[in-house]
Amino acid sequence: MYPPQVLAIFFAVATAIEALSSPLPHPLDPLSPTELTAVRSAVLASSLVSSRPISFHYVGLDEPEKADVLSPTNGSILPRRAFVIARAGGLSHEFYVDITNTSAPLVVSHGIHGGPGFPMFTTEEQVAAGRLSREYPPLKESLRRRGLAFTDVGCGVFSMGWFGKVNEARRLAKVQCFVVAGGTANFYARPLEGVTLLVDLEKLVIVGYRDRAVYSVPKAEGTDYRAGKAGPPFNGPVPAPGVVVQPEGKGFHIDGHIVRWANWEFHVGFDMRAGTVISMASVHDSDADLWRRVLYRGFVSEIFVPYMDPEEEWYFHTFMDAGEYGLGVSAVQLQPGADCPANAAYMDGYYIDADGKPVKSENIICVFERYAGDVAWRHTGVAGPIAPITEVRPEVTLVVRMVVTVGNYDYTLDWEFKTVGSIKTVVSLSGILEMKATNYTHIDQIRDDIHGTLVAENTIGVYHDHFITYHLDLDIDGNKNSFIKNTVVPKRNTGVPATGGAPTPRRSYWTVLSEVAETEAEGQVNINDTPADLLFVNLSKKTKVGNEVGYRLIPAGATATSLLTDDDYPQRRASYTKKQVWVTSYNKSDKWTSGLYAEQSTGDDNLAAWSKRNRRIKDEDIVLWYTVGLHHLPCQEDFPVMPTISGAFELRPYNFFERNPLIRIRPPGNSPNCSCSVGGSG
Amino acid sequence: MYPPQVLAIFFAVATAIEALSSPLPHPLDPLSPTELTAVRSAVLASSLVSSRPISFHYVGLDEPEKADVLSPTNGSILPRRAFVIARAGGLSHEFYVDITNTSAPLVVSHGIHGGPGFPMFTTEEQVAAGRLSREYPPLKESLRRRGLAFTDVGCGVFSMGWFGKVNEARRLAKVQCFVVAGGTANFYARPLEGVTLLVDLEKLVIVGYRDRAVYSVPKAEGTDYRAGKAGPPFNGPVPAPGVVVQPEGKGFHIDGHIVRWANWEFHVGFDMRAGTVISMASVHDSDADLWRRVLYRGFVSEIFVPYMDPEEEWYFHTFMDAGEYGLGVSAVQLQPGADCPANAAYMDGYYIDADGKPVKSENIICVFERYAGDVAWRHTGVAGPIAPITEVRPEVTLVVRMVVTVGNYDYTLDWEFKTVGSIKTVVSLSGILEMKATNYTHIDQIRDDIHGTLVAENTIGVYHDHFITYHLDLDIDGNKNSFIKNTVVPKRNTGVPATGGAPTPRRSYWTVLSEVAETEAEGQVNINDTPADLLFVNLSKKTKVGNEVGYRLIPAGATATSLLTDDDYPQRRASYTKKQVWVTSYNKSDKWTSGLYAEQSTGDDNLAAWSKRNRRIKDEDIVLWYTVGLHHLPCQEDFPVMPTISGAFELRPYNFFERNPLIRIRPPGNSPNCSCSVGGSG
Repeated sequence: MYPPQVLAIFFAVATAIEALSSPLPHPLDPLSPTELTAVRSAVLASSLVSSRPISFHYVGLDEPEKADVLSPTNGSILPRRAFVIARAGGLSHEFYVDITNTSAPLVVSHGIHGGPGFPMFTTEEQVAAGRLSREYPPLKESLRRRGLAFTDVGCGVFSMGWFGKVNEARRLAKVQCFVVAGGTANFYARPLEGVTLLVDLEKLVIVGYRDRAVYSVPKAEGTDYRAGKAGPPFNGPVPAPGVVVQPEGKGFHIDGHIVRWANWEFHVGFDMRAGTVISMASVHDSDADLWRRVLYRGFVSEIFVPYMDPEEEWYFHTFMDAGEYGLGVSAVQLQPGADCPANAAYMDGYYIDADGKPVKSENIICVFERYAGDVAWRHTGVAGPIAPITEVRPEVTLVVRMVVTVGNYDYTLDWEFKTVGSIKTVVSLSGILEMKATNYTHIDQIRDDIHGTLVAENTIGVYHDHFITYHLDLDIDGNKNSFIKNTVVPKRNTGVPATGGAPTPRRSYWTVLSEVAETEAEGQVNINDTPADLLFVNLSKKTKVGNEVGYRLIPAGATATSLLTDDDYPQRRASYTKKQVWVTSYNKSDKWTSGLYAEQSTGDDNLAAWSKRNRRIKDEDIVLWYTVGLHHLPCQEDFPVMPTISGAFELRPYNFFERNPLIRIRPPGNSPNCSCSVGGSG
Repeated sequence: MYPPQVLAIFFAVATAIEALSSPLPHPLDPLSPTELTAVRSAVLASSLVSSRPISFHYVGLDEPEKADVLSPTNGSILPRRAFVIARAGGLSHEFYVDITNTSAPLVVSHGIHGGPGFPMFTTEEQVAAGRLSREYPPLKESLRRRGLAFTDVGCGVFSMGWFGKVNEARRLAKVQCFVVAGGTANFYARPLEGVTLLVDLEKLVIVGYRDRAVYSVPKAEGTDYRAGKAGPPFNGPVPAPGVVVQPEGKGFHIDGHIVRWANWEFHVGFDMRAGTVISMASVHDSDADLWRRVLYRGFVSEIFVPYMDPEEEWYFHTFMDAGEYGLGVSAVQLQPGADCPANAAYMDGYYIDADGKPVKSENIICVFERYAGDVAWRHTGVAGPIAPITEVRPEVTLVVRMVVTVGNYDYTLDWEFKTVGSIKTVVSLSGILEMKATNYTHIDQIRDDIHGTLVAENTIGVYHDHFITYHLDLDIDGNKNSFIKNTVVPKRNTGVPATGGAPTPRRSYWTVLSEVAETEAEGQVNINDTPADLLFVNLSKKTKVGNEVGYRLIPAGATATSLLTDDDYPQRRASYTKKQVWVTSYNKSDKWTSGLYAEQSTGDDNLAAWSKRNRRIKDEDIVLWYTVGLHHLPCQEDFPVMPTISGAFELRPYNFFERNPLIRIRPPGNSPNCSCSVGGSG
């Protein structure tokens, strides 16, 4: 605990702050608008970069060293720092800015990125490139040939990826267009197929243009998803209205960025690239009366979405939604009673625009308790002479949700906390398919591989994958953890006890081969290979009977891995997608699986590349990287907007507690406050 | 539709019935108490079986021929029939009984089972065998040696399985005991290890006894799960109370056994072996204004739970919970506000006791609408010049639940209906582990393979598997369906359009190889082998653009297959557990994957055996058999009662609808009744 003098200061400060009605700052809090403004001032005032204009592509918290954040003896306030990537003079500039005193911010270091790749796009340049493109005379000519005017289309930036040639002198991007006229909001259903532009984002000039072929533009009818346009008639299914009511109010408390609920406490942060960041998640062990750490930091590190059409207009659709577009930037305002239920609370986020000025994103995170009607544990004891006994404990969970819309796709990203001690992450996909225009109006006309499904006349839903990779810095009861693979191994019954067998007619069984990963090479697992339980354990902490405390990783569907060849360019950039599980030695700068400069990266700074260092991961501060993967073969139900489909995984206690942590909770309110002996069947 | 004369009769009958305030009978309704009583009378009055006593082991609906149930021109009432398996004179007797007129029931056929295997146990014989066992003098002696009295223990029947020798003359079972004295209700935590009895269930005499070794009995302290005994202190996590409130009441209607909700209509039946039976599930296609069939009949066919300890007392723990014990018989009374939420409705079930008399099982099925706060579909449209548009539709689902407690384990078996047209089945496991007593009190003492986890002092949670196999007679828009495997196949970009490529720098992609299974051999799939979408389609029904209408099978975790060797006896009995997916040609008597006589079966009549017939399954009436499989490596949190862990799969429309079936529903009540243009980010 803190020494008395520090405590005195702490309480004085706390009182002062409470008097101001502000929550206590936390070292992992995201940068505030005041801090963001200070960062901008410092960068613009700095003489280190003379070129103008200067555009801000990333500003995020450079969090303090982990040891300082966790150290209970450090009573002083930790410095506040920002990391900045800005473009000026055709170069990517990196700044570390100290904003501990926002009135006197200070650039503490500056560097220039020397390798391949670029930072994420700014919203402004995407808009500017789109506007520029549709006024481009060759495009206007192409449109005229298709019976369209430039006012009928809208254009957007598509990352071009890297296909062997490194652009260093210029920062280019591809641009493609959609027909926006025609009365539908769903322009993704009406692509201007066959036309691709190449734009220099910094000079804001078109440097390439190709109109390869003319295709029919799919009709607007039937594509709109707006309520006022999709019907009438509104003849779809209508369930009865229902709402969760909490007679004693919400069960969680949000204090600044700290959330407390049931036996969980954690910090909710925000980053313009990662979106929601969960930090310092600890669970209360009621038997030991101790708060025990589970997760130091967790966030989505990248979303890789490669499309499976090698055609000119599609081959480079190999998006890295976090590194190229920014998940935090793409977070959308949550609709109460729709995105989140009535009993939710909301949090805002702040990031910067291209000018470095703070932008407020309202209601982009919601927190709510879920009463899904599930059961936490139950047993009905029925045995001859003993009166039947029934004990049931219903389950209530806490969901922290963000929705990220990157162009066409809407990702609902949930962190769900359970009282059993689990953290379950769920990715739910909805929104609009990327669609390709075609002249085909019926399957019978098709003889070749259309690389997708004909979902409507003239419309192909192109095959693609989603790989959502999580950074999960688990700290099970402390920093030093190990990664254990408990492989399920079939065995023949030798009949001999000394070799695990017994003299019985049983011929086989399975047992467990438990292996601790020594180095990063052993920390890579394709979970579809062999059946195994995967654990993060603390070898120095054991239960009373001697089991190492740990957490287990439980996938729930969505375990696809990439099928692209290792030498294919997008696969080289996202090479880590061949395995769902990676475990690395903690290194503060290892945050982004696609590399710091993901846009047009070459894969030299990605998760797989770091792992080649083959660092020691046994009894070390280690990080789990887990990828939820789906192969998407579209169907007509995905048109014009797709119904939600989910993939998930759960991090669940495994010998972390001495026993079921929910054994000492009362039965639900309406039951008698004792075991329920009710007449059962039989 | 029905011809006018039949309609007139129909309405007359309907009016008469309504006047009686009874729901219309349905040909798939489970047997009523009156019908069960009539069955008993007929069997007992029959001269076909003279031996007494006669014990009833199974009585279930022998449903009418599928064609008769589905035929819209058959206005007359279909006959009501029961299938009975009764034991008398050391033989298994089969009866078909006509109870169309319950005042004059008639045995229409009788047969004697000539092969191996026996019907499910009766509750009465299990209780009798347990009582008999604990009074057995050698057991009393064994107990005395362990410092116990016979009143300190309770004994129960454990199926002995088949290990090479077929018992035909006698129907034997193993019996094992637990210490019930000591103040805990959790006797499964206190096994009397080392002792096994062999009982003749029909003569009710002990015919074998082995006391192989003495082991410590785990202490009672810490094992109880009753609220009054697990605490105080009640220091576990306490979420705030919450309840789903439906201001306009429930959205579903139950009419007899027919459930109608949103765009779903289905029949809920009950069987003493299968538990809940979902029949005639149809979804309403709002665009076509048609009810379309999806599932003719669905139920759990078997739950196979093999344990992985070859020791004398454990090698035969290879349970078939449906075929040996009966899931319907084992269904427990659901606790309102705990097993099912406050807005649930309940249904009863009826089965027979060993004497053939009807037994009422109250509140064993519940139906409720779930408001989990999830989203059915959403999109936020953000594009430069266009004002942001947000459309969100929250998801509400309908759950039909039963809890089956077979000894120690509690299975919550859910059928969840979604308005998107999906049927999702969820298996949630809770209850108590099967535990083995050991002299070990700490891991450090252990040098050999204990075939499990030391979950507490002197207590091993033995490794085991669960395989829950579903019978799913999908009828997509009619009986004649086909099974399609859409394999995801990696491809090199040839650069040549004629071979699917394009002259671009992209080196690889994946495409889909679509194969229709011709015969049952091709209908067997291990889904962990290669990535593929599995579909049930109707080759004769296509969407407007030509896609075959179908449903897709989507696993959600829990895809383990059995690792026992093919020649191992339990694996021969449950040989179908090597693959999650089987597709067979519909055959009314193919209901029980473990065979009609599962208890001590030899595998000759199981799902894998039928499939050797290699019948044609292309464009035929076919059935899907899907197994949810889990390898369970217990942990301390599973003690003394395990927190719920789930496995699931979803049957979801795939080109079944022309487009998203939920596109024509209004936004939720609180939103304006039009598209929501709200200021978004960026």
